[in-house]
Amino acid sequence: MKVSSKEIWESVEAIRAQAPLVHNITNYVVMNTTANALLAIGASPVMAHACEEVEEMAGIANALVINIGTLSEHWISAMFKAAERAGERKIPVVFDPVGAGATKYRTDTARKFVESFSPAIIRGNASEVMALVTEDIRTKGVDSSAASSDAVEIGRSLNAASGSVVCISGETDYIVDGDAVAEIRNGHPMMQRVTGLGCTATALCGAFAAVEKNAMAAAAQAMAVMGIAGEMAAWMAEGPASLQSRFIDILYNMTESNIERHLKEED
Amino acid sequence: MKVSSKEIWESVEAIRAQAPLVHNITNYVVMNTTANALLAIGASPVMAHACEEVEEMAGIANALVINIGTLSEHWISAMFKAAERAGERKIPVVFDPVGAGATKYRTDTARKFVESFSPAIIRGNASEVMALVTEDIRTKGVDSSAASSDAVEIGRSLNAASGSVVCISGETDYIVDGDAVAEIRNGHPMMQRVTGLGCTATALCGAFAAVEKNAMAAAAQAMAVMGIAGEMAAWMAEGPASLQSRFIDILYNMTESNIERHLKEED
Amino acid sequence: MKVSSKEIWESVEAIRAQAPLVHNITNYVVMNTTANALLAIGASPVMAHACEEVEEMAGIANALVINIGTLSEHWISAMFKAAERAGERKIPVVFDPVGAGATKYRTDTARKFVESFSPAIIRGNASEVMALVTEDIRTKGVDSSAASSDAVEIGRSLNAASGSVVCISGETDYIVDGDAVAEIRNGHPMMQRVTGLGCTATALCGAFAAVEKNAMAAAAQAMAVMGIAGEMAAWMAEGPASLQSRFIDILYNMTESNIERHLKEED
Repeated sequence: MKVSSKEIWESVEAIRAQAPLVHNITNYVVMNTTANALLAIGASPVMAHACEEVEEMAGIANALVINIGTLSEHWISAMFKAAERAGERKIPVVFDPVGAGATKYRTDTARKFVESFSPAIIRGNASEVMALVTEDIRTKGVDSSAASSDAVEIGRSLNAASGSVVCISGETDYIVDGDAVAEIRNGHPMMQRVTGLGCTATALCGAFAAVEKNAMAAAAQAMAVMGIAGEMAAWMAEGPASLQSRFIDILYNMTESNIERHLKEED
Repeated sequence: MKVSSKEIWESVEAIRAQAPLVHNITNYVVMNTTANALLAIGASPVMAHACEEVEEMAGIANALVINIGTLSEHWISAMFKAAERAGERKIPVVFDPVGAGATKYRTDTARKFVESFSPAIIRGNASEVMALVTEDIRTKGVDSSAASSDAVEIGRSLNAASGSVVCISGETDYIVDGDAVAEIRNGHPMMQRVTGLGCTATALCGAFAAVEKNAMAAAAQAMAVMGIAGEMAAWMAEGPASLQSRFIDILYNMTESNIERHLKEED
Repeated sequence: MKVSSKEIWESVEAIRAQAPLVHNITNYVVMNTTANALLAIGASPVMAHACEEVEEMAGIANALVINIGTLSEHWISAMFKAAERAGERKIPVVFDPVGAGATKYRTDTARKFVESFSPAIIRGNASEVMALVTEDIRTKGVDSSAASSDAVEIGRSLNAASGSVVCISGETDYIVDGDAVAEIRNGHPMMQRVTGLGCTATALCGAFAAVEKNAMAAAAQAMAVMGIAGEMAAWMAEGPASLQSRFIDILYNMTESNIERHLKEED
């Protein structure tokens, strides 16, 4: 599947016009930076994790983003309650299995979440995606121990089993749904040296899925915008901190011409 | 009421000289950025939320800042314990009802806190302030669904009922106490695209209230410094991330002449 | 003891080559910034605090960093479980007693942790280190109320009692082990106006201890790199936010010649 720069741009404009409310139950490390990325692209983020309120918050949101980066029991309950409500309202749920494959707790929680809710989109690195299907993978903390291309076949199995669009990020991002695969080749290696850019990609998937009904298109558009902004930010960045800062500023200023000029897909 | 640049500057100098200890029980999203803002203006922030220690920490603090941005049961207990102790010691309590009006849990908690402790200052956006008084408002997550000018009358009711100075931030900031209203017209629209600048305003209210006994003056001074720094930061900022970074640097370097030249009040 | 720039550089290269997995159980305020510092120097950070998974995570880590900056009961249990596992595996444990001396809860927890596990390295400011030994000190929130030089003798007692290398940071950093003391005189006063740089120093101790078996050498190397990067970052920084951003970029780009030219030790 090809993603056109015109469609990406239409979604960016829709996010800016509608400012969809994206409800995030995410990890402590990235709450600030993913909120800022959502604000920069034009969405309206809210972070809320108390069991007492997540159903009500998911009840007014336009998308729900669940990220297991810093898990604990209360948070898992909140994630399940929020996803239940999101399912009833048929708003898109985007799931990030951070660190699946590093500990049994994460792997089990991630698998149970996917089985229970068939999220619209699952976005992870290669190890994390593989850990949802096979026992033969060991994630190094939250960093992948495999290349994204190695995970495409397993991504297909996961897609078949879960019904979720599977988005595997890495040097090339693969977005898998049934027989279709989209490949986005934007991005820059220095992005791996900024904490939480994977989580940011997941959050952006939430913003795009709030305005684009086709989940595969939404995921591919989000990854393209992510990669383009990262690539532009890395250009002349002096290191990971200036990359992160420029990344947010570029998301905020993203133009159709930026997308047209920089988009790199498979041939 | 008018705020003079001379009085604002005296408070800034007092903060820098005394480095008041500001105890924050705040949300996960903004802990880092509000601590940095407090350090930049010259205060000494501490974040502590365990029920086992909040009374002792509030027992050595010069001001207490309570922010309900990411609530849960244990945190609510800690907020109430700390405020109890602050009340005994008569140090100023500043309260931020983040997301009141978005969920019943937040609205109820915020109302109960205000009734129990009559904070020196309540700072929120228009929706949040309105939600403390009326059922007719729905906050969009943590973003306001009303203009600050719409909330002034309700702010007056809240002030009458609670005894708290009510500070409503928006394009114009209104600070209400009895018949008096101060209006600060500094700031920049891009500040809404940076997460946690509202929470930062609340934290700065804590620093100013620690050195200025008149709570209304303290709130107006804090909002003026906030708006001036934001306005200066937005000038030539390339986007929200550079605005945030420049904002902190400008707080750190704020001079009397910056305040004199930029302060915008009602006529 | 003298630290040579050659040895520091060898450790930096080892971190970049091996990307040691540093498991952090740390406070909410600094999770993002310490993860970014670890990534910038070349390590692979993971933040995980659930009792259900900390033993497994510590079981694959190359170093464990424990920081009590925002404590609560569940977190303390997790810290103890993780340290138990780290001890079994003989990987280095680095401990930061943030705010010890400010509340009994922190002081007691910190003392109990040190007694139970004899961490390889304890890093704190003067007040925090003193609070582990004597009742005569009162930390101002998380800021020191004493100069680092005042804490050297007490640091020696702590080292004798605990067996831990004691690293006292301040204008001069003292690293104490038995009769040996290393003194690092790098750094810049503006670093005190950035939240979490102390915690970052602790996290870097974890990365260095993962590749350098001698704990005293590892601590001294980490403090030297910390101070050099801070000093370089402060040069031409416009304030604390640009210092923080430049600090990370400089860690990422650190060269042997940077270390040679800037290292300042006692004569």
